[in-house]
Amino acid sequence: MRLGFIGLGIMGRPMAKHLMDAGHTLTVWNRSWPGIDALVEVGAEEGASAADVAGRSEVVFTMVGDSPDVEAVALGSQGIIEGTEAGLVHIDMSTISPVVTRAIAARYAEKGVEMLDAPVSGGEGGAVNATLSIMVGGKPEVFERCQPLFEALGKTVTYCGPSGSGQTVKLCNQVAVSVTNMAVCEALVLAKKAGVAPGTMLEAISGGAAASWQLLNLAPKMLAGDFRPGFKVWHQQKDLRLALEVAREAALPLPGTALVSQLYASLEAEGLGEEGTQALVKSLEKLGNVRVGD
Amino acid sequence: MRLGFIGLGIMGRPMAKHLMDAGHTLTVWNRSWPGIDALVEVGAEEGASAADVAGRSEVVFTMVGDSPDVEAVALGSQGIIEGTEAGLVHIDMSTISPVVTRAIAARYAEKGVEMLDAPVSGGEGGAVNATLSIMVGGKPEVFERCQPLFEALGKTVTYCGPSGSGQTVKLCNQVAVSVTNMAVCEALVLAKKAGVAPGTMLEAISGGAAASWQLLNLAPKMLAGDFRPGFKVWHQQKDLRLALEVAREAALPLPGTALVSQLYASLEAEGLGEEGTQALVKSLEKLGNVRVGD
Repeated sequence: MRLGFIGLGIMGRPMAKHLMDAGHTLTVWNRSWPGIDALVEVGAEEGASAADVAGRSEVVFTMVGDSPDVEAVALGSQGIIEGTEAGLVHIDMSTISPVVTRAIAARYAEKGVEMLDAPVSGGEGGAVNATLSIMVGGKPEVFERCQPLFEALGKTVTYCGPSGSGQTVKLCNQVAVSVTNMAVCEALVLAKKAGVAPGTMLEAISGGAAASWQLLNLAPKMLAGDFRPGFKVWHQQKDLRLALEVAREAALPLPGTALVSQLYASLEAEGLGEEGTQALVKSLEKLGNVRVGD
Repeated sequence: MRLGFIGLGIMGRPMAKHLMDAGHTLTVWNRSWPGIDALVEVGAEEGASAADVAGRSEVVFTMVGDSPDVEAVALGSQGIIEGTEAGLVHIDMSTISPVVTRAIAARYAEKGVEMLDAPVSGGEGGAVNATLSIMVGGKPEVFERCQPLFEALGKTVTYCGPSGSGQTVKLCNQVAVSVTNMAVCEALVLAKKAGVAPGTMLEAISGGAAASWQLLNLAPKMLAGDFRPGFKVWHQQKDLRLALEVAREAALPLPGTALVSQLYASLEAEGLGEEGTQALVKSLEKLGNVRVGD
């Protein structure tokens, strides 16, 4: 199949490579230069613009930053919509607003272009190892047609419903992830401040009802003082902002999510946005004047 | 070994039975009647008071309600302290205040009585199947002597440190459990209110970084409208109150824990204290005027 890929960052680059490995021809484009060369070296063609990529492809993937980035690549000058005829499928794998997703899909529909929103979880490791979880919104028949492409990129592919549903599920995921992270941080500071070694506490509770991915994977990093990013604070904040926007539009209070977003804001205030989400513990440490690490 | 067991409720009864099955002789007592007969039928002796049980035992277990209950059984009229000579070990498996635990242990020390705090997690199922997680505080040499007894009751036995440390770890567990529960509830109401089937959302996120015991075990009950208790709301509230007391004494803010305790209070306001902790979702449903179930 003739595919296009726009957005060749730490996620997009390995994903594009998997699609080539699956036997597809690929045209790539990036708003900035890095990322293109590595793919051109292994046989990808270089497009001149998003429109150019779209004109040479049956399916175009995007993996960029936030809602305005997808809007610009899709609908802006030299965007996907300018370069294609009816029948193209745009699969956006960025995490953006479900409202913006639906607006783009509506504009595309006027021209016969199909869109799937297909945000992922699993981070860089998931992209490199093709083990991403992919949450897909859009028309079911378009999803079915594209399913083999998703299977080259991830191990859990879930069709979530009409346009925007993939983005909504991704935001639910981020709500669950970040509030669970807060649960882990509060347990750690309580142990430390009440005089029990946090590592001993973790060992005692990890096998039971307190267990979570966050507890098993992030708590040991917090104790070791390892704040290198698996997923960065400012990316988490972007996603929580999107979740709280969707909730506000739906008149839905999410008090735990709002709280954890405030705690992350205290990290941004210290310039820690580039650290991993496990840095959330620092906000609790600051509140309680305590350090959980050794 | 000659053992005593005081507090024969839904947890204490199967635990006492496991100790008999392990070959120990058992004297039992309960402040109210139910629970005793079943054990006497299978060979336990009936004590006349906590003091009487203590006088006939080398190790006495308690599994009662809250801090004042343990204080009464240990130090009150006809309590353990009145019925024993030096050398007795009192193993308290109730979840109570670590401060009260240390106070009781200090009184015991004057008389040469040893105390271990050994609260558990795993609920009724864990008690019945001897798969409890047990978190132990006290002198290490006393813990070592009693370890075979713990192994008859649970599958994860962790020595946590000096007197009160088991209770502290249990409270950390409850903090992690309840804030993670809030994470699950907020993801569910967001999905529903934003137009995605909560069950589909769960399926999509359960395999990744949002995964937790709470998500995998409680969310399906929330969707099915099954609020029968594994662990009751008012027991969870008791434990959160203890955790927040410990935190306050340590001058430690725990904003997520405080928030989830307020949400549980809204359930108590509706008389739902006897429901399972998965009823937490009802507080979020009420805030957002939405129902996640079918």
